[in-house]
Amino acid sequence: MSLTNATPLQVAQSARLGSRKLAVLSTEERNAALTAIHEALAAGKDEVLVANAKDLEAANKAAAGGTLSQSLVKRLDLGKKGKYEDMLQGILDVRDLEDPINKTTSRTLLDDDLLLTRLTCPIGVLLIIFEARPEVIANISALALKSGNAAILKGGRESSHSFAAIASLISSALSSTAVPPSCLQLVQTHDVVADLLKLDDYIDLCIPRGGNALVKYVKNSTSIPVLGHADGLCITYLCADYPVEKAIKILIDAKTSYPAGCNSLEQLLVESSALTTTLPAVAQALLDKGVSLRCDPLALSALKEKLDSHSAALLQEAGEKDYDTEFLDLILAIKTVDNVEEAISHINTHSSHHTDAILTSSSSAAKHFLSSIDSSSVYWNTSTRMADGQRYGFGTEVGISTNKIHSRGPVGLEGLTIYKWTIEGDAQVSAEYGAGGKAWKHQKLPTGDDEWTAQNDEEKELLRKFRAGKTNSV
Amino acid sequence: MSLTNATPLQVAQSARLGSRKLAVLSTEERNAALTAIHEALAAGKDEVLVANAKDLEAANKAAAGGTLSQSLVKRLDLGKKGKYEDMLQGILDVRDLEDPINKTTSRTLLDDDLLLTRLTCPIGVLLIIFEARPEVIANISALALKSGNAAILKGGRESSHSFAAIASLISSALSSTAVPPSCLQLVQTHDVVADLLKLDDYIDLCIPRGGNALVKYVKNSTSIPVLGHADGLCITYLCADYPVEKAIKILIDAKTSYPAGCNSLEQLLVESSALTTTLPAVAQALLDKGVSLRCDPLALSALKEKLDSHSAALLQEAGEKDYDTEFLDLILAIKTVDNVEEAISHINTHSSHHTDAILTSSSSAAKHFLSSIDSSSVYWNTSTRMADGQRYGFGTEVGISTNKIHSRGPVGLEGLTIYKWTIEGDAQVSAEYGAGGKAWKHQKLPTGDDEWTAQNDEEKELLRKFRAGKTNSV
Repeated sequence: MSLTNATPLQVAQSARLGSRKLAVLSTEERNAALTAIHEALAAGKDEVLVANAKDLEAANKAAAGGTLSQSLVKRLDLGKKGKYEDMLQGILDVRDLEDPINKTTSRTLLDDDLLLTRLTCPIGVLLIIFEARPEVIANISALALKSGNAAILKGGRESSHSFAAIASLISSALSSTAVPPSCLQLVQTHDVVADLLKLDDYIDLCIPRGGNALVKYVKNSTSIPVLGHADGLCITYLCADYPVEKAIKILIDAKTSYPAGCNSLEQLLVESSALTTTLPAVAQALLDKGVSLRCDPLALSALKEKLDSHSAALLQEAGEKDYDTEFLDLILAIKTVDNVEEAISHINTHSSHHTDAILTSSSSAAKHFLSSIDSSSVYWNTSTRMADGQRYGFGTEVGISTNKIHSRGPVGLEGLTIYKWTIEGDAQVSAEYGAGGKAWKHQKLPTGDDEWTAQNDEEKELLRKFRAGKTNSV
Repeated sequence: MSLTNATPLQVAQSARLGSRKLAVLSTEERNAALTAIHEALAAGKDEVLVANAKDLEAANKAAAGGTLSQSLVKRLDLGKKGKYEDMLQGILDVRDLEDPINKTTSRTLLDDDLLLTRLTCPIGVLLIIFEARPEVIANISALALKSGNAAILKGGRESSHSFAAIASLISSALSSTAVPPSCLQLVQTHDVVADLLKLDDYIDLCIPRGGNALVKYVKNSTSIPVLGHADGLCITYLCADYPVEKAIKILIDAKTSYPAGCNSLEQLLVESSALTTTLPAVAQALLDKGVSLRCDPLALSALKEKLDSHSAALLQEAGEKDYDTEFLDLILAIKTVDNVEEAISHINTHSSHHTDAILTSSSSAAKHFLSSIDSSSVYWNTSTRMADGQRYGFGTEVGISTNKIHSRGPVGLEGLTIYKWTIEGDAQVSAEYGAGGKAWKHQKLPTGDDEWTAQNDEEKELLRKFRAGKTNSV
């Protein structure tokens, strides 16, 4: 990794050149680079923490002066118990994931000796813009190298000392590996983001990791594709038939286990027939956890009748904008709907298409909901907080995407890959085929590189032929 | 299909609402709509051709006045032998393709009774902007409905009578089907494109089908993702070891079979040791087909020495910009390189990342080339003209993408889909798992809906359980 003060154009061009070399390194070479980074960061823990202490000192001053929030100061602290070790372990976890590139995902025999193959490959050059958390730099570097992508990193000013220390360790670690240093560049110059966002000839994908304002700014400032989500406005629809204890368990988790998370619950839709049956106990449980409830008139009057006066006094009236607000806090908007159709229509209009859920004992209602909700994750009888790459079994996540193309929901390493098509032929040409000419075979072949066991004589012959003379794509 | 003069916002909002209904229609309902469109267009052939004749008359006048090219007039003509029937057959071909949506592409048991499924689904609302060819409207309508997407279509002015006639037939055909009419809207108002391109809240993907200028305009005018390619600058590298007859066959096809095609060859790189061996015969064959050759100094002097004086006189000197030009004509730029490394570096810098090829008998050179070239299609010993959805076996194609995300190369129906994640649970919540809590199972399960045959007792029990109580996703 180089810590660079080069111009944005120089940074992007050198990343592009580096990415071409990185893309053809072997799995072992990329993994060895991750091992080297891990060792360097483990050995350099003390110097990173010294640098981190400088960032913390400045942040604490700013917090005392009221220009920085306490939660941001907390996020900066790499010395917090286990945090540095988690960061180190994360690098090894990424290293040990399956290699996402050079995988054959489709193989078609177009004609004799004319083989079409689809192979996964890196996207190329990533631009990653992130806010305060300094450990993200190690995580992102690991993900980029594992997937064969070069990355240009721009971190928040608050972590600049920590970033510089980590980048310097990664840089010297990489010098002993096959990875060109231009494949990981930490941009230190201020105010370069706007210029970087213009370089769509050299940068293939931009990943902003931070709050709503950052993501919106990036999306509106570039023609480079952006992976991520601006809002996480998650909604759950509670049906009258769902057992109250299970509903409480799920909704408490969804709302209170990490209110600042993008997958936390912001709105509860309640089937009208549940207003006086399930809702009061659910509302009481949420109030007991300190959640402010902003209710529509129907829910409000039902709850006022059922709850004790102390609890009833805590209830608030919802305004229209509460149904379009991501609170990121212990606040929940509640709205009454008559049926699943109305719930679907409300969610498709008001949710941020991140994660929405239905709680019901009816499999037909659930099926209808799962197929009708246009969101990246749609759940039946579980908490919206499940939306997470670790929980989905990806090992790690790049972020969560609400895009409608490429990668949707929690994005793992696969989201950092694309594919290329190869054809291996023997001088066949396009004009030989079609009207009056030869017919295409279009024979689908197995894709597993090691596991292709020929099913019959024809496949045996094919396998022999390609293994003998052709590329490693069979 | 409605022929609309509504405002861009009304068009986009109604398409969004329609798309939600379309997304949950069954395969049979969507196929029935394609059958109805086919029948209506077959029965209405005469009225379409009458309308088309009006477009042709205007176009011929414009061509006589020099404001329209003759090739555009030809593309307008729906009455040309077989063209209308091809358009009709195309609709049935699309109908009979495998349904690309509601396919399970991943299934993981996160824990007992907690199933994560990845299901393909439509992208949502497409904006398709195309130029003169009137048959594209039928083709695009079929592709959109087959994949469950709503489409807003904006065609070139030259075909407006043909478009209106076709749209009116499609509109009445759809009225007897389950597809909401707002799912296919032909925008007739002039100058609405700029406004439509701003509606990224309602439009998910934009597909410009036309020339370089249209694609570049669209890419620079919107934050909606754009699928397509601006340039098709395809390059082939000819190695000295490759048999001359095969080289001629491939290069004649690549350069001359359809020079206006985006997959046609624009540049030939020649290994320096082939300058006096293979190149002269290749050059002669290309000259015989009327191809103008623009050569670098080394190729020029080698060819001047080897070709007869008549042919030698036809050779031209290449300028630097010839190596960055998509000629779309019978012109080929020729450049000498010393080896495969130099060829790779030139192609990665100058090609448009559409389709590039190597002609060699060396499997090691070919492997290196296939893995190093950063283009959507990379070939060994075949013509760049192979880059086409029909030829790849997709049945039809939406276009060819040089994007680095989502879909790359010829794009079939799969490129019009994305996926959603569903979880079916039984009140499990996120806080139960991880440090000190329950462990995730993350057990990968088979994805084939019909073909999942349980491998052991545990899988049998799983299968029984999900088939009994849960959704159709297992």
